[in-house]
Amino acid sequence: MSSLNRQRSKKTGLAPGTLMHIGRQKPGSTRIDVVEYDASRLEDRRFDSLTECLVRKPSPVVTWINVDGLSQVEVLQQFGSCYGIHPLVLEDILATDQRPKAQDFGEYLYVVLKMIALDDKTRELKSEQVSIVIGGNYLVSFQEGLEGDLFEPVRVHLKNEKARLRLMGPDFLLHALLDVIVDNYFLVLEKLAERAEDIEDQLIDNPTTATLNEIYRMRRQMFFLHKAVWPLREVVSGLQRSDSQLIHPASGIYLKDLYDHTVQVLDTLETLRDMLTGMLDIYLSSASNRLNEVMKVLTIIATIFMPLSFVVGLYGMNFRYMPELQWRFGYPAVLLLLAAIGGGMLLYIRRKRWI
Amino acid sequence: MSSLNRQRSKKTGLAPGTLMHIGRQKPGSTRIDVVEYDASRLEDRRFDSLTECLVRKPSPVVTWINVDGLSQVEVLQQFGSCYGIHPLVLEDILATDQRPKAQDFGEYLYVVLKMIALDDKTRELKSEQVSIVIGGNYLVSFQEGLEGDLFEPVRVHLKNEKARLRLMGPDFLLHALLDVIVDNYFLVLEKLAERAEDIEDQLIDNPTTATLNEIYRMRRQMFFLHKAVWPLREVVSGLQRSDSQLIHPASGIYLKDLYDHTVQVLDTLETLRDMLTGMLDIYLSSASNRLNEVMKVLTIIATIFMPLSFVVGLYGMNFRYMPELQWRFGYPAVLLLLAAIGGGMLLYIRRKRWI
Amino acid sequence: MSSLNRQRSKKTGLAPGTLMHIGRQKPGSTRIDVVEYDASRLEDRRFDSLTECLVRKPSPVVTWINVDGLSQVEVLQQFGSCYGIHPLVLEDILATDQRPKAQDFGEYLYVVLKMIALDDKTRELKSEQVSIVIGGNYLVSFQEGLEGDLFEPVRVHLKNEKARLRLMGPDFLLHALLDVIVDNYFLVLEKLAERAEDIEDQLIDNPTTATLNEIYRMRRQMFFLHKAVWPLREVVSGLQRSDSQLIHPASGIYLKDLYDHTVQVLDTLETLRDMLTGMLDIYLSSASNRLNEVMKVLTIIATIFMPLSFVVGLYGMNFRYMPELQWRFGYPAVLLLLAAIGGGMLLYIRRKRWI
Amino acid sequence: MSSLNRQRSKKTGLAPGTLMHIGRQKPGSTRIDVVEYDASRLEDRRFDSLTECLVRKPSPVVTWINVDGLSQVEVLQQFGSCYGIHPLVLEDILATDQRPKAQDFGEYLYVVLKMIALDDKTRELKSEQVSIVIGGNYLVSFQEGLEGDLFEPVRVHLKNEKARLRLMGPDFLLHALLDVIVDNYFLVLEKLAERAEDIEDQLIDNPTTATLNEIYRMRRQMFFLHKAVWPLREVVSGLQRSDSQLIHPASGIYLKDLYDHTVQVLDTLETLRDMLTGMLDIYLSSASNRLNEVMKVLTIIATIFMPLSFVVGLYGMNFRYMPELQWRFGYPAVLLLLAAIGGGMLLYIRRKRWI
Amino acid sequence: MSSLNRQRSKKTGLAPGTLMHIGRQKPGSTRIDVVEYDASRLEDRRFDSLTECLVRKPSPVVTWINVDGLSQVEVLQQFGSCYGIHPLVLEDILATDQRPKAQDFGEYLYVVLKMIALDDKTRELKSEQVSIVIGGNYLVSFQEGLEGDLFEPVRVHLKNEKARLRLMGPDFLLHALLDVIVDNYFLVLEKLAERAEDIEDQLIDNPTTATLNEIYRMRRQMFFLHKAVWPLREVVSGLQRSDSQLIHPASGIYLKDLYDHTVQVLDTLETLRDMLTGMLDIYLSSASNRLNEVMKVLTIIATIFMPLSFVVGLYGMNFRYMPELQWRFGYPAVLLLLAAIGGGMLLYIRRKRWI
Repeated sequence: MSSLNRQRSKKTGLAPGTLMHIGRQKPGSTRIDVVEYDASRLEDRRFDSLTECLVRKPSPVVTWINVDGLSQVEVLQQFGSCYGIHPLVLEDILATDQRPKAQDFGEYLYVVLKMIALDDKTRELKSEQVSIVIGGNYLVSFQEGLEGDLFEPVRVHLKNEKARLRLMGPDFLLHALLDVIVDNYFLVLEKLAERAEDIEDQLIDNPTTATLNEIYRMRRQMFFLHKAVWPLREVVSGLQRSDSQLIHPASGIYLKDLYDHTVQVLDTLETLRDMLTGMLDIYLSSASNRLNEVMKVLTIIATIFMPLSFVVGLYGMNFRYMPELQWRFGYPAVLLLLAAIGGGMLLYIRRKRWI
Repeated sequence: MSSLNRQRSKKTGLAPGTLMHIGRQKPGSTRIDVVEYDASRLEDRRFDSLTECLVRKPSPVVTWINVDGLSQVEVLQQFGSCYGIHPLVLEDILATDQRPKAQDFGEYLYVVLKMIALDDKTRELKSEQVSIVIGGNYLVSFQEGLEGDLFEPVRVHLKNEKARLRLMGPDFLLHALLDVIVDNYFLVLEKLAERAEDIEDQLIDNPTTATLNEIYRMRRQMFFLHKAVWPLREVVSGLQRSDSQLIHPASGIYLKDLYDHTVQVLDTLETLRDMLTGMLDIYLSSASNRLNEVMKVLTIIATIFMPLSFVVGLYGMNFRYMPELQWRFGYPAVLLLLAAIGGGMLLYIRRKRWI
Repeated sequence: MSSLNRQRSKKTGLAPGTLMHIGRQKPGSTRIDVVEYDASRLEDRRFDSLTECLVRKPSPVVTWINVDGLSQVEVLQQFGSCYGIHPLVLEDILATDQRPKAQDFGEYLYVVLKMIALDDKTRELKSEQVSIVIGGNYLVSFQEGLEGDLFEPVRVHLKNEKARLRLMGPDFLLHALLDVIVDNYFLVLEKLAERAEDIEDQLIDNPTTATLNEIYRMRRQMFFLHKAVWPLREVVSGLQRSDSQLIHPASGIYLKDLYDHTVQVLDTLETLRDMLTGMLDIYLSSASNRLNEVMKVLTIIATIFMPLSFVVGLYGMNFRYMPELQWRFGYPAVLLLLAAIGGGMLLYIRRKRWI
Repeated sequence: MSSLNRQRSKKTGLAPGTLMHIGRQKPGSTRIDVVEYDASRLEDRRFDSLTECLVRKPSPVVTWINVDGLSQVEVLQQFGSCYGIHPLVLEDILATDQRPKAQDFGEYLYVVLKMIALDDKTRELKSEQVSIVIGGNYLVSFQEGLEGDLFEPVRVHLKNEKARLRLMGPDFLLHALLDVIVDNYFLVLEKLAERAEDIEDQLIDNPTTATLNEIYRMRRQMFFLHKAVWPLREVVSGLQRSDSQLIHPASGIYLKDLYDHTVQVLDTLETLRDMLTGMLDIYLSSASNRLNEVMKVLTIIATIFMPLSFVVGLYGMNFRYMPELQWRFGYPAVLLLLAAIGGGMLLYIRRKRWI
Repeated sequence: MSSLNRQRSKKTGLAPGTLMHIGRQKPGSTRIDVVEYDASRLEDRRFDSLTECLVRKPSPVVTWINVDGLSQVEVLQQFGSCYGIHPLVLEDILATDQRPKAQDFGEYLYVVLKMIALDDKTRELKSEQVSIVIGGNYLVSFQEGLEGDLFEPVRVHLKNEKARLRLMGPDFLLHALLDVIVDNYFLVLEKLAERAEDIEDQLIDNPTTATLNEIYRMRRQMFFLHKAVWPLREVVSGLQRSDSQLIHPASGIYLKDLYDHTVQVLDTLETLRDMLTGMLDIYLSSASNRLNEVMKVLTIIATIFMPLSFVVGLYGMNFRYMPELQWRFGYPAVLLLLAAIGGGMLLYIRRKRWI
């Protein structure tokens, strides 16, 4: 879950634009899916590497190239020279610690954002960087190659001939991809919300240090998610208000819708965060309550038994001349005295509302 | 009261614009009320479903359709095709986890906001989403179909022939509906303020963990309310400054008035929130005070009786040669010593201002 | 001092513009003072009710009507129809829970703000709403009718023929009224500052729970004051930058001066607030210090006397064969041992810097 | 150090523009220094009062009048009428609780700011208000007349014929005066930083309540300084971006430089503030650490000696039939038992990592 | 690491523009490296002082002068008069407590920022001020002369004839230098992140006061870094949006890239800061947990042994007439009673969930 970039320093001193993969190397090889479609036709191919430039069909055929896995730097170089992409963009695609952003290069747009997944076993958040380059009649998307493919529903949807997606340009495809990613945030948030409620139950039943650690861990995950989603808000609103010719005005309302979803994700995040803060406060104040309880018991015990022990100690002294010891009813009298002291202390404690 | 969306993820992967009800299914069937009115005439009808397009009367007759209950998706579809409403709007009407917002589609405006009710028994806040679509001479409002109908006073008011409402267009009706919703916030806030005062009394009389939980619960309700009302501020000020032809300039001052009320709601919320924070602080510092009190008692008891017990223990030793034990006035002397020690300790404690 | 509106909900469902007094009914009847003046002449009359429209003198005679007491709704209605005031303004004048604001209606300006008084006995802040409507050659001010009249100095000042006030229009009179209200804030703040210093002295001498409650109460008063003064800042700066013809450019510098005073009030408020926060911190940390002190005493006592009590208990055992008990110098030896243990413990405690 | 205005209320009800000294009356009489200079000539005179208007030399001769002491209101009146200064400006010069600000009156500029001095003995911050009125070829500065004169270096500098100051107009003199005041803030900050380090050393060596009070006191001083310097930032940037003809474009870069210094002062303030907050946190958590330490010792002592005391008490009972008491090796056996219990408790405590 | 300027006050009263080194004097003498290059040629020279103006080659030859060490004020004066640099810029170069900023003087740009290094032994952050003046075909950089030279990679890179750097003007060289400095921040942050993880491990294993101090120290370092990097963001975005002719439009995208890196540094800083805050919270709440643990043990011990001691004390009394003492099975009965009391207390404690 660490968002602390550990590898960027490797590049210190290299010229800007030098291609080098930054981030944990994800397992698995590179897989390239190419889909070409227009309203009437759809062709689907898969490659393992990219040795020559794909001949792009003329408009309105849209070419979608999905590159899954960033280990083959030469695929990126190939792509860069075929499509005339700026070296800094290629560098950013490989540096998987980018902040979500959208950049307009006139001929093409570059969008980078984060997919988030919650590992059900380790309960860790995993993030995967998705880079999208969109041009006049093509869209190229890059994933880091983690397991699972969020884009599958889009692919299925594309195969439906009546889908609106088939009639529109690559900007609409961009929206579909972003939409699927943002919708996935809701999935992650729902799982997190369930866990938050589990923790809340623990907090009421039997709060332990583990509960506290769990709360802090979730807070950090919230922070991590917030950092991934917060800049996305600006990215989407930037695309929406963009004057780029690559974004068709008709996409505006869909992007507005996407923007609303992003804001909702942030709202839910904030609600969860607030819940966790409240849980933390409750944990701490219940800890202080328990301390109070414990101390009260200690004080009650001490308040009652210390005076009693003093009295019995008194009559345990070995003085030769202690008249009480010789009295016939000395012992019962002392027992009465002890009962009186104990009772008085109990009354005092009760008046103090400790029991 | 949960504002954590639990169902949005169901839609992951579906094409945008797919109609699907998101949110807890509210009980009860759909009810459709249609009111047509102008300055001189008012007609009132009720339907259970919408099978064909309502023939709209020409201006200045205003048609108000109030749909109570969102379970019949086909009503929405019917409405959408009759009035030419964008599918994303229909989707938003069904997704009952929207953030309050206003969108201008030229031909019509879409406004969504939250009604809030406080359940007197469970003390939970319930929220109901209200969507309003307003066109040239019609207004369609959608409620989730919870019990109670806030719009009743507007209906009554409409029947009054001299009401200003009868002379104006649907924008004025919009204002009347929003006004009634915002006024209702005051009602909820007053109930909450009463409860806050109850809690404050508890805090002074006998603060318990239940009091603390109650404070946290109210704080969360404040948070929930704030999230519902805060975006409304922008919605109303957006409508007011709108250049849409659907909002008549004469409504401006009424919307300004509504805006002032919204700000007042937020102000009251903030005051309540501040009150709760203060109560929390008082709770915590009074808990720490009580700990101090308890510890003082313990320390006083221990300070007095430990030395005394030591002395009586001393003379309880069984040494053969302990001259004091044989003294004629050994016992009274020890009693005097004990009184001196006890008194000295009391003086010390008093000098420390513990009692 | 409560700023929680308890009566606004009464109006739920009524048409906007319905006149109804909101707020605590202040005692006393309505009093109407009418002053007409120009550079050379001043006429002063008092009424108990307003039955007909006052015939306004032509410019440059300025008419100042001061209405003290809002119980007679018909006075307002009369005024509204005579001067052509919008019903929403009349409604706002009666609703005494307004946020300070200024509204420009072209023909007239509406300004609403708060007078604050500190009751010397109950130490509560009382607030009175002041509404001012200013037109071409008239100014009408409404007060809630509490005891005391802040406007008296203005009236006295007006009677001075050489006063600048006599030469200028109603905008200058507006400035004079606002100035007197803002100056009064300083008075209240000075009293509060004195009390804050009293509390500070208590904090050093003998802090009790009462001190704590006093601090929280003052903090709430600060909050209350802040809410009354903060929007005033915008009101005054709005008037100053206003392009209304009712505000003469020559008043600009006076309004700027007033603005500076308002900012100064807020600055002083902030300083007081910061002082109170610091006092709270000191209270809490001194409470924790006292706990530490108490616990130290307890621990010192226990550390010294528990081992001692063990030793004397040891020689209080009744074993038949305990050689030490028979020793000639057993008792003095044990006394030495006890002194050694006690001294050693004292040394240990001193090394720990507890005493 | 109090920034709570205690005297402004005196003016309540007076007409704006009434001259009255607000603030603590500073000791000493008024002293007026008049310097007239151009590139080639410099004349220096001192007056005790101002009975007639000073005949101003034509440009490029610059006249600098420095008034030290505000007790003679008539000096101000004289000055006001000679130079045509607005009464509100004169009022502001006397009211020594102004917030730093700059006002452009076309013919002249009015700048007011604060000099700060740290009294080495009482360790209190003292503030002195400096008002500067700058016209076409004159500059009049007003000080409250405290001991010490910050402007001395400027006077010395002026006497140097080659100084840039001699060639430029009064705006450059204004810059020189402001520069000397801002530089003085650094001096004060350095002294405060030294004290902060002293306190930090105390915190490590031997933190007491006095340390805590010292921290709070410094925090308040930071707050006080911040209030004096923060508005200055806007004042300087306002002068820099001013379109007044009185500020020569060539001064722009010098004012930018001054602005940078002001920001640096604020930065240093913030750093010091952060340092103090950290020190406060350390104090509080070290207090809680010490409580932990104390409680551990108490618990260790009690855990070891309570069971031991019980055992010796047991064999101190006087039952007739207690076989152990008669045993030959009963006493050594009990001693062994006691050692075992004590040792076991020690092991337990060690396992808990308390010692 | 101290960012508190200790020497600026030395300059109080001096005329602005007076050259004087402010800051800790760094050891070592001044070293001047001059590199002249264009696409085809590169010449590299080193000087110890600057006695005469370097004859600048005409465009497109770029002259880069790197001055390492600020002790020789005359080098700066020489440079100032040769290149026509404003005295205030020279002053700023020497004052090593500048806030990062960029200033456009038309003919040249002045950029100042901070290099940060983390001393591996003392774990202190060291900061070195870097000033860069860039003109039409030259760039002069000033370092304070600390050990290590971050610019070495740029020098190496320049020697590569195919480097893009060789084809571009001094603005590209500026970018290269800034890039190398920002990349170095990542290096520092990675080291800090490693230490933060070490501290986190300590926190789980065995938190001590040293851990706490370490956390506070890192927090201060974060604060220090933040102050160095935060203004840089504005500097870079200012350069990027600059309309200066000295910044070639083609550099825009590289500066945008640099800007993204700066934002990423700030993001990482924020993450680290948040981590530290969480660690602090965990430390404090685990301290309070341990207190609870300790108190529980104390209370358990006292709750069990105080009643037991009372009972044995009771039968240690020396009354003549105590029937139980004579009973045949008095002793075993008391033993049973003691076991019952002890067991009952244990049950009570277990019901309270203390063990």
